Amino acid sequence: MTMAAAGLLTALAAAPVTAQVQSGSAAGRESVARIQRIEDRAEIEQLLLNYGRHLDARDFKAYGQLFARDGVWEGGMGTVQGPAAIQAFMEKAIPGANTAHNFHLLSNFVIDVQGDTATAWSRWQFVAPDQDGRPVVAQAGRYDDTLVREDGRWKFKRRVAANDLPLPRPAAPK
Amino acid sequence: MTMAAAGLLTALAAAPVTAQVQSGSAAGRESVARIQRIEDRAEIEQLLLNYGRHLDARDFKAYGQLFARDGVWEGGMGTVQGPAAIQAFMEKAIPGANTAHNFHLLSNFVIDVQGDTATAWSRWQFVAPDQDGRPVVAQAGRYDDTLVREDGRWKFKRRVAANDLPLPRPAAPK
Amino acid sequence: MTMAAAGLLTALAAAPVTAQVQSGSAAGRESVARIQRIEDRAEIEQLLLNYGRHLDARDFKAYGQLFARDGVWEGGMGTVQGPAAIQAFMEKAIPGANTAHNFHLLSNFVIDVQGDTATAWSRWQFVAPDQDGRPVVAQAGRYDDTLVREDGRWKFKRRVAANDLPLPRPAAPK
Repeated sequence: MTMAAAGLLTALAAAPVTAQVQSGSAAGRESVARIQRIEDRAEIEQLLLNYGRHLDARDFKAYGQLFARDGVWEGGMGTVQGPAAIQAFMEKAIPGANTAHNFHLLSNFVIDVQGDTATAWSRWQFVAPDQDGRPVVAQAGRYDDTLVREDGRWKFKRRVAANDLPLPRPAAPK
Repeated sequence: MTMAAAGLLTALAAAPVTAQVQSGSAAGRESVARIQRIEDRAEIEQLLLNYGRHLDARDFKAYGQLFARDGVWEGGMGTVQGPAAIQAFMEKAIPGANTAHNFHLLSNFVIDVQGDTATAWSRWQFVAPDQDGRPVVAQAGRYDDTLVREDGRWKFKRRVAANDLPLPRPAAPK
Repeated sequence: MTMAAAGLLTALAAAPVTAQVQSGSAAGRESVARIQRIEDRAEIEQLLLNYGRHLDARDFKAYGQLFARDGVWEGGMGTVQGPAAIQAFMEKAIPGANTAHNFHLLSNFVIDVQGDTATAWSRWQFVAPDQDGRPVVAQAGRYDDTLVREDGRWKFKRRVAANDLPLPRPAAPK
């Protein structure tokens, strides 16, 4: 017990119980709500990162589980809905082990939590070996996400992957 | 305050509430201060990221608003002060839409919050298409920032952009 | 009011003050523990980033101090234990000032705090000038960390640096 708390006990020796608990919890509830938002944000960050981890590890079962039951993945390869369908889609699109050691660099997370839903915006770069085995940024783009708390866990409600580079066609010579 | 809590306080109108709330908030104030620092840090992270978002989107009005009223941008292109001047400077320096889809990768945020001021250090990479439209790291460097809470929002008091690469001159052959 | 709070009021209707403060701090202690975990996470993030900062600045004394007294660095260059040995090892392995302006891009931090210990997983890229002085991703890999709170500060208990790219040998032509 801190000295402040000990002094409090002495000072309030005859105070009624109800007001203390209530007044304490009025401010307390606000603090708990703020803590919750911070924890939500941290959990969403980990969700965005686990997306890349499971993808790079080719663990598409865990990858699919990052999506809500009606969650949607939308990108250049198509649009798919639901964890099982997303898993099957990716297993077919990217078969085999990641022997190339390519990976996703995920960054620039802008996250906005609103109760049990949230939005996120972020950048991705796909780094892969060139023909000599050296790392190059093969592709780069953005993710636009809506997220939802489902059974107490944050999930992708919709993830839209957009490509920025390479440019659709070679740049004109200067 | 919630309606339930308000009603309860009314019902207990004769209770010596004040001392309890005050003393109760001794530990509470410490917790609230810690929560505030965490939220400040998160808001500063978003500020650092919005800098890149607005820059890459060529939204220099929003970009200028990230600076305090007397905020300073300092870099290889010069030194400018104040949101309107910074906006005008960038609109002139980087005119037109971002048809090249180049972007800033922002990372390695080291942030130190001290009440209503803060410092930040981070790395930036400028990724742009090469002549074939493929992404390359065209430039890389660091930001050194001082930040200030102004009208309840975190802003750049001073941002100094330093370049690391490319090296000023080609490296000597080995 | 939650059911727990309602039950508490009933249960404590005639209780002495001590129990009230205890029960009030029951929720408070939980909040403080949650705040602590969030702060721990933030401090660990800064530790991971300071590793790169001190390394790139060739400040190997500060770099060594990021490790616990029995902390271990393990990577392609070998395995070393303890701050002083790690400092000496790095000063020998990477002598001189960083005139090449090469740097570590640190990202994708997945952190799990468990009381006074934690684990972290992250990606690193080593960006260095090519023979023309232009930035290229020279190497890329992962860090697997176990961390420990020592004398009130988070330190590396063990950092294992693994390389992903370049591939050990050139990829076979397609």
